[in-house]
Amino acid sequence: MRVDNRKYDELRPLTITRNFTKYSPGSILIESGNTKVICTASIEESVPPHIKNTGTGWVTAEYSLLPGATPTRTARESSKGKVSGRTHEIQRLIGRSLRAICDLALLKERTIWIDCDVIQADGGTRTAAITGSYVALADSVQWLIDKNVIKENPLLNSVAAVSAGIVNNVALLDLCYAEDATAQVDMNFVMTGNGKYVEIQGTGEEYAFDEEQLAKMLKLANKGICEITEIQKKALET
Amino acid sequence: MRVDNRKYDELRPLTITRNFTKYSPGSILIESGNTKVICTASIEESVPPHIKNTGTGWVTAEYSLLPGATPTRTARESSKGKVSGRTHEIQRLIGRSLRAICDLALLKERTIWIDCDVIQADGGTRTAAITGSYVALADSVQWLIDKNVIKENPLLNSVAAVSAGIVNNVALLDLCYAEDATAQVDMNFVMTGNGKYVEIQGTGEEYAFDEEQLAKMLKLANKGICEITEIQKKALET
Amino acid sequence: MRVDNRKYDELRPLTITRNFTKYSPGSILIESGNTKVICTASIEESVPPHIKNTGTGWVTAEYSLLPGATPTRTARESSKGKVSGRTHEIQRLIGRSLRAICDLALLKERTIWIDCDVIQADGGTRTAAITGSYVALADSVQWLIDKNVIKENPLLNSVAAVSAGIVNNVALLDLCYAEDATAQVDMNFVMTGNGKYVEIQGTGEEYAFDEEQLAKMLKLANKGICEITEIQKKALET
Amino acid sequence: MRVDNRKYDELRPLTITRNFTKYSPGSILIESGNTKVICTASIEESVPPHIKNTGTGWVTAEYSLLPGATPTRTARESSKGKVSGRTHEIQRLIGRSLRAICDLALLKERTIWIDCDVIQADGGTRTAAITGSYVALADSVQWLIDKNVIKENPLLNSVAAVSAGIVNNVALLDLCYAEDATAQVDMNFVMTGNGKYVEIQGTGEEYAFDEEQLAKMLKLANKGICEITEIQKKALET
Amino acid sequence: MRVDNRKYDELRPLTITRNFTKYSPGSILIESGNTKVICTASIEESVPPHIKNTGTGWVTAEYSLLPGATPTRTARESSKGKVSGRTHEIQRLIGRSLRAICDLALLKERTIWIDCDVIQADGGTRTAAITGSYVALADSVQWLIDKNVIKENPLLNSVAAVSAGIVNNVALLDLCYAEDATAQVDMNFVMTGNGKYVEIQGTGEEYAFDEEQLAKMLKLANKGICEITEIQKKALET
Amino acid sequence: MRVDNRKYDELRPLTITRNFTKYSPGSILIESGNTKVICTASIEESVPPHIKNTGTGWVTAEYSLLPGATPTRTARESSKGKVSGRTHEIQRLIGRSLRAICDLALLKERTIWIDCDVIQADGGTRTAAITGSYVALADSVQWLIDKNVIKENPLLNSVAAVSAGIVNNVALLDLCYAEDATAQVDMNFVMTGNGKYVEIQGTGEEYAFDEEQLAKMLKLANKGICEITEIQKKALET
Repeated sequence: MRVDNRKYDELRPLTITRNFTKYSPGSILIESGNTKVICTASIEESVPPHIKNTGTGWVTAEYSLLPGATPTRTARESSKGKVSGRTHEIQRLIGRSLRAICDLALLKERTIWIDCDVIQADGGTRTAAITGSYVALADSVQWLIDKNVIKENPLLNSVAAVSAGIVNNVALLDLCYAEDATAQVDMNFVMTGNGKYVEIQGTGEEYAFDEEQLAKMLKLANKGICEITEIQKKALET
Repeated sequence: MRVDNRKYDELRPLTITRNFTKYSPGSILIESGNTKVICTASIEESVPPHIKNTGTGWVTAEYSLLPGATPTRTARESSKGKVSGRTHEIQRLIGRSLRAICDLALLKERTIWIDCDVIQADGGTRTAAITGSYVALADSVQWLIDKNVIKENPLLNSVAAVSAGIVNNVALLDLCYAEDATAQVDMNFVMTGNGKYVEIQGTGEEYAFDEEQLAKMLKLANKGICEITEIQKKALET
Repeated sequence: MRVDNRKYDELRPLTITRNFTKYSPGSILIESGNTKVICTASIEESVPPHIKNTGTGWVTAEYSLLPGATPTRTARESSKGKVSGRTHEIQRLIGRSLRAICDLALLKERTIWIDCDVIQADGGTRTAAITGSYVALADSVQWLIDKNVIKENPLLNSVAAVSAGIVNNVALLDLCYAEDATAQVDMNFVMTGNGKYVEIQGTGEEYAFDEEQLAKMLKLANKGICEITEIQKKALET
Repeated sequence: MRVDNRKYDELRPLTITRNFTKYSPGSILIESGNTKVICTASIEESVPPHIKNTGTGWVTAEYSLLPGATPTRTARESSKGKVSGRTHEIQRLIGRSLRAICDLALLKERTIWIDCDVIQADGGTRTAAITGSYVALADSVQWLIDKNVIKENPLLNSVAAVSAGIVNNVALLDLCYAEDATAQVDMNFVMTGNGKYVEIQGTGEEYAFDEEQLAKMLKLANKGICEITEIQKKALET
Repeated sequence: MRVDNRKYDELRPLTITRNFTKYSPGSILIESGNTKVICTASIEESVPPHIKNTGTGWVTAEYSLLPGATPTRTARESSKGKVSGRTHEIQRLIGRSLRAICDLALLKERTIWIDCDVIQADGGTRTAAITGSYVALADSVQWLIDKNVIKENPLLNSVAAVSAGIVNNVALLDLCYAEDATAQVDMNFVMTGNGKYVEIQGTGEEYAFDEEQLAKMLKLANKGICEITEIQKKALET
Repeated sequence: MRVDNRKYDELRPLTITRNFTKYSPGSILIESGNTKVICTASIEESVPPHIKNTGTGWVTAEYSLLPGATPTRTARESSKGKVSGRTHEIQRLIGRSLRAICDLALLKERTIWIDCDVIQADGGTRTAAITGSYVALADSVQWLIDKNVIKENPLLNSVAAVSAGIVNNVALLDLCYAEDATAQVDMNFVMTGNGKYVEIQGTGEEYAFDEEQLAKMLKLANKGICEITEIQKKALET
């Protein structure tokens, strides 16, 4: 039995609230158990230097943990004057995941920024951020279409993320913080709505894992992504 | 008539939600019209170098605007690698305001951090942050008392803040963003629950104001603080 | 009796030396008791991005304390790699104060920088900096007129600043460092030559003050600004 | 046929030169085709704060691309004043990979730094860096044993890394830069000498991949790591 | 004839004003023609880490150009967030020059900081800074002796600096800015009061010079240092 | 007898390997005894702002010590977030030395970057870097000529550097680290192939030196540069 009484292949309760704040064309509160992340989209009518004048757009993300999101205060990166390696990794991952399902040419020369701010952290903040970011991105793209700024929807698919891991030699889906802290292996999976892989990141924590364990985690991830994709769909229909 | 149909001396609707997040001993969502700020308290069992070994405690604050809080995205200060002058000014103001009503010796050698993160900004974010921070501070102090960490309550009074200004030559209470952007004078008042001044900051925006206008703004501020103090009290009683 | 034998409503001896250095179109040494500040104007034929192509000019200020200005050496902000919150606050205040009396459109698209470098600090450095900056600004504006760069004088008024405070429950004008260090309230007033307010900043140092104390400080500030304005006028006439 | 005439499952020529520089207890030049990386070990008789006084040691890595390593000069991160997200990701990956095969308690309270400096870059610099770092680590550990600083060898296994990817819908082993630049999927595998996974990182470049493609890449990686492990072994025997 | 009518081997008028500011134990205004530098000494009762607990002291210097010191404003290094290469070079040179004539062991474990702030710049700021710093150092050392903090004078000699250069193929002493800007060779000499070399720095500006030219500049420098040493002596006697 | 058995006027064995790496038009490994530096040239089709649109080119250098180049690890300047004063000094010196022998107008509006990365440090890294940089520059200039990018060779001369010093009152040529660490005087000479001076930098290490000692070091430097120039010539002929 898991610390929060879930089965080995059970997701935490997942809710997605749209229109969470007022001034963004896509603003989501995603809650995965005790992990809560605000994802907001902002549209900027320019693109980064490396694609200027190519006619194509860009989707990028930033991630931050609010200082009070964790039981022990997390020092603010603005005060420390630099973004940590961990934050860099996460925001690059979110950006790549969103671009993987987006035909950037259809977006034209503009950038959609997705900001993921974690207000409560209980493990799985990066996967929740990706899952929520997709919905914020979908809303902001619809806003562009409604305003006749773009004609065609650049989103080719949905995208979602979930973790799986090995804890006490057992494969588990969607680790909470207490599980993550003692996990032997921690893997994050980013997958499209039709079950293909966009990103796989697996790390043995002073541990190495074998083919069979990998296979179990892959299976759990596939199951989890299916369920999350359904929740995204329902959130977007309402 | 004001843009949001308020009378000249009328506050925006003000609500204070306690226990907004789970891992902080004092976590507040304060909503003042469309301005929304999360204020969370964190306790650290050490103090800044300048008061080390004096037996006295410290209360300090940090302030940040989430990128999606404004209609045009606000660049993240962590990405820019430094805290702006405006942020410095605001977080120093919040910290001084809270220390003014706190007997730091009773807190013993520990620091209470108050983090104010604006998730939606429609003017008056610094005054809302102060008003909400007081409630977060009160909750965290009560938590220390409940846990028997400190014996006596170090809070000598309550503290709250409100703005008043001159817009089109008329003195108004509690400016929203549209009013603030065209104001001739913008003043912020920080006052204790018993009507004394802790901070007064008034700025003519390419404009200078006279004694009479100052008197009107002082009167509005006193009225506003009275009402806000009542709302703080009620929030803390429930 | 005050530490330096002044009366409660008496300014420190105030002298303004023009043409203090040779390469600036407005270079002032202002001495207010033992506080000494060099204020120099520099003219740059461009404006900050936010007003580019609007045809209007800009006035801005920077402030710094020389390391040897204080009995204990003040570490250089260039060596620390960042400007402190206090410096940010002060230089923003000086800039706003100068812009308040300046019709920036008449300046055309150019920037006047006022650099305030404190060579000796005995309290009141920011108010001395504002008072001296006005004279440096006036000299640099006259230089532009003499050179036929601009036609009309953009300065609508003079501006000066002074502090007032409550020390041992007594309201005093123009605090020196020893008084400032023990003050219950410290207020800074920036006022125009015709007695209107541009900025009011009052801070209770772990103390809150009432209406009556505020009134006393306002009266002292008005008296002080009158006298300082006269000294500025005389300095500019010679 | 591949750009460099290799078969789909063929590694680039891989050579490992030990004792490449003189002042390090473990200094390696690893050459994988045209990719060349210097890996040097340095020993520091202290540990990072988070494990101080736990009696355990630490292994960490830093990674850098020399400016002239690429056809177009890569700006120096020291001159830019900050380490990029990509560098952060890579050096964290190298560090985790080495710690996964190391019993840090046997190292006692000291840190082994592995510096990976790329002098010529043709794709696969991070995997070459990991493979070479293991040999540098092994040499520095042996140096500690030879000097009687530690008694037992803390290395539990060897570790190596290789990439596999999908290029033009074909699964390939060990991508060079030209292949990497057009790859649909790029995966990096870090594995122990006995064939277990330490890290898996797979990224679809604006592409998503399926189970079958994943299986092919896993198979290639296993083959590649076997061969690399042999080369490491031989290098260490001579 | 030179731009300022000096002979080829003539120094600019040089004056040294002691006790220029009030709060430093050694505060000098040095004026060399139109170049003016404030040199102040500060004493800190600690030493840098690399000599901690060795019983020996330290002398170090920092250098800065006030923004208004030059006809075109020099941007503040604190605002740019980093100290330039030129500033680094100069302050390291000043520090080495002062330490060369100081028996640091006699200073005991304390640091004397010399801050050189250029308020007006017309070439030769670094040499004026060294010449003035010596006097500020001598005054601060005397202050320590007068206060019985140290017993013996750690200064073994005096130190001064001067430039010589080749302009239009002619060797000149003590270049002003207009000469320096067109010089083919610019050399700085730091010498002790008894005519020995502490530092020699010569740079051909897109030019190379021969033995004979070097010999001429050495001769000029020796003459200049003799005269400057006399001025330092007289300043310290009064 | 010297630590490495050299005579007082003997250089360390000096070898220059061209085409050390593959992607740079000028890539040199220079070995001077145990000091080893990689010098690579990169060509950028733009120039720094201060010479934009003047039709002239630029040559600049950057210098870095690899962390493992020294017996005790040297912390990476990218991780510290800033370039040290020592590094600034050295890279400015290398850049000036190369520009002194280059007719920048013939280079047209482009920049040649020379990157000097020290992989093994035993004293004299800056002089080896200059000597090697000249060869890398010569190769990159020839590359430009071969590609018909420029017509005339902008190099007017060769340039090389060597150190001389006073150790135990004896003048020595080309100090290794053990000698440098105990030297009373350390001088660096940068000279052209026809025996003229480009840079002279001499520093007494808490020591002052006289005319006679200076003359001896000048003589040693002239002898050393002659021999080094021959080695550069031969390297470029092969």
